[in-house]
Amino acid sequence: MSTSKTRETHPAPEALLKLVKFDDRGLVPAIAQDHRNGDVLMMAWMNRAALSETLRSGQVCYWSRSRGTLWRKGETSGQVQHLKDLRIDCDGDTLLLRVAQTGVTCHTGRRSCFYRALRGGEIEDILPVERDPRDLYGG
Amino acid sequence: MSTSKTRETHPAPEALLKLVKFDDRGLVPAIAQDHRNGDVLMMAWMNRAALSETLRSGQVCYWSRSRGTLWRKGETSGQVQHLKDLRIDCDGDTLLLRVAQTGVTCHTGRRSCFYRALRGGEIEDILPVERDPRDLYGG
Repeated sequence: MSTSKTRETHPAPEALLKLVKFDDRGLVPAIAQDHRNGDVLMMAWMNRAALSETLRSGQVCYWSRSRGTLWRKGETSGQVQHLKDLRIDCDGDTLLLRVAQTGVTCHTGRRSCFYRALRGGEIEDILPVERDPRDLYGG
Repeated sequence: MSTSKTRETHPAPEALLKLVKFDDRGLVPAIAQDHRNGDVLMMAWMNRAALSETLRSGQVCYWSRSRGTLWRKGETSGQVQHLKDLRIDCDGDTLLLRVAQTGVTCHTGRRSCFYRALRGGEIEDILPVERDPRDLYGG
């Protein structure tokens, strides 16, 4: 598409940015999936700046809706996500990030944020705490 | 939690409904994942009624934001999703549905809606069309 333009080392992702349908808040949901075993790790949001930074740096950056700032995943905890592959759905309104997760994804110290399952009408924790959150966040 | 109440065959998912944080539109994002191989198939939205129906029937029902109605996945196409397991994330604001997908998920006839990947700065289709959409929707 941009064959006549000068290529950067990390090309500007115009082809992707054109496809993404950001919502009326300027956000798009991004699902992070472990690229090795397919585990769904978390879902968060990106704005255009977060997506651009992620593609430029190769390290996943979300938009924190609660703080209203870019959220460089792992900046405090060291539990960063390296982007291995990025996919977009048929409607262009959801992203799937295939990532290499350093350590654990969840602030509770679990591998995935989806650690609670409905079993027999009750909620069960199905993943162990692998890291002490106090070690991750200096609490 | 509801041990003193009469148990239904499919117990009312009070334990789950209490945890879910619906957004200001009354919706929660739901990620559908193939329970056999971990493929992420789609992301859509549920309101309380869609979630309740899904749990009651065992067949996934979303909320269509464009049509403003319950969206019984596969009602037209026959490509239904049977719920095998339901998980909720640490914040309670995203659901992960582990499903058995009949046929294909995507209205384009592909196995997953995430069939476009960013490769070398360009977008590539990485999944084949397995079903003719005209067969699925009688077009």
